[in-house]
Amino acid sequence: MRTFKLTLAYDGTDFAGWQWQPKQRTIQGELQETLKRVTQEEINCVASGRTDAGVHALGQVVSFDSETYLSPAALAKALNAELPEDMLVCDVAEAPPRFHAQREAIRKRYRYVVQDGRLPDLFDRKYVWHVYQRLDVEAMRDAARPLVGTHDFASYETSGSQRLTTVRTIHDLVVERRQAELTDRVVIEVEADGFLYNMVRNIAGTLVAVGKGKQPVMFAAEALARKDRQAAGMTAPAQGLFLVGVEYGELRIADSGLRIEYDEDCGVE
Amino acid sequence: MRTFKLTLAYDGTDFAGWQWQPKQRTIQGELQETLKRVTQEEINCVASGRTDAGVHALGQVVSFDSETYLSPAALAKALNAELPEDMLVCDVAEAPPRFHAQREAIRKRYRYVVQDGRLPDLFDRKYVWHVYQRLDVEAMRDAARPLVGTHDFASYETSGSQRLTTVRTIHDLVVERRQAELTDRVVIEVEADGFLYNMVRNIAGTLVAVGKGKQPVMFAAEALARKDRQAAGMTAPAQGLFLVGVEYGELRIADSGLRIEYDEDCGVE
Repeated sequence: MRTFKLTLAYDGTDFAGWQWQPKQRTIQGELQETLKRVTQEEINCVASGRTDAGVHALGQVVSFDSETYLSPAALAKALNAELPEDMLVCDVAEAPPRFHAQREAIRKRYRYVVQDGRLPDLFDRKYVWHVYQRLDVEAMRDAARPLVGTHDFASYETSGSQRLTTVRTIHDLVVERRQAELTDRVVIEVEADGFLYNMVRNIAGTLVAVGKGKQPVMFAAEALARKDRQAAGMTAPAQGLFLVGVEYGELRIADSGLRIEYDEDCGVE
Repeated sequence: MRTFKLTLAYDGTDFAGWQWQPKQRTIQGELQETLKRVTQEEINCVASGRTDAGVHALGQVVSFDSETYLSPAALAKALNAELPEDMLVCDVAEAPPRFHAQREAIRKRYRYVVQDGRLPDLFDRKYVWHVYQRLDVEAMRDAARPLVGTHDFASYETSGSQRLTTVRTIHDLVVERRQAELTDRVVIEVEADGFLYNMVRNIAGTLVAVGKGKQPVMFAAEALARKDRQAAGMTAPAQGLFLVGVEYGELRIADSGLRIEYDEDCGVE
């Protein structure tokens, strides 16, 4: 029996989220079904975390055990040949025995993408949150700064999840404007040791309220101090959210997330 | 009665092309249906040219007559509020009486987008032609150069269309590599006084054969000289093709097409 670490990208648009559910199209369901076709084994996959319906991934990490004789590269190619077009294996590696993608994750990085402008970008509409007002990125950056560090993020948690504590450590929080082909993007990236339910979407909704000028710069910090979900902004919609990458021990998340190099060995030809 | 000139973007993925057809979802059909809801008139639209199933547009130009009392800006807003999410009105202007978007077009610009790399770009898969080999852009550029100017493009025409002559003038043909978020693009842009059926897709297929090293640099010029469709490369798939813009008289197509500024007045709020 070998343990594998698989890095997976997916377009979350047409999935009911990561987790297997009866009669629903889920990422776990499609991946396990494909693993079964490739290996002839019933394989149970564990992800670094469950992503919700509509949320995308550039580098979700999945662990599983298998008896397969295939090399990691051959397994990647075989999976990519069989997976639906909205899922893509970026890398497969053999992991230490009993490697567990969820329990051993020490950091994760998420990206939230907003498109600000009077007209939507037709060709990116499933991967951004479109807002009409032009956002004040400087104000959003100032608002975000007090969230970095170790804090009780209860105000940024949507209820309904189990957790022992609402304290998390944000190591990095970037707000920047990027020019895309047709229209601008405002990109929010958050790297933390863990995330509460909807935490990135709640931070994004809060920062966008500041960027629109509907709330003052101190809104995000004041909400944090109140430890009350009602004090922070709305939950931004799922389609703007991407899981960028997951860090394990010495493995680093691809630096800025600006350009992820897919492993060349996973191609199908 | 007033004549209007409407600039339209669309994601061609889920359309059976521009032209109205019974029981098919077409761009003309959706636009005329929406114009009817907004103006209470039966309106017939003329496009600069018909785009095929799966082909996209950044700036298709459409002309039509209407008795509407709405201003061009109000008409644009009303249409954008009613159109499906894969169509977008970028501009509406009042045109001289009897302006005809097809007959009066003097130049058009198309873009063909190739993604070259071992793995597809998951989030752009409906808007590029994915090829596995890394393309030699210099060779493609050298191959493309002899196509610029006035030539008989019979070798680059798919049969099945009516036309008086296969002579056309290419004013500009650009081949360049652009870095996108996850992977590179090779972009081919062609501006001409008119296009034969599938001409851009046939040029793209021919240049990609050169870029892959499967054909020598002179392949495109030799095919041109032979005046025989069999002499040129394959027809590149529809989903990589975009109609960038159309020129009428003194109106210029947005320069490189790199960044099209949508008219701010068309937004829906």
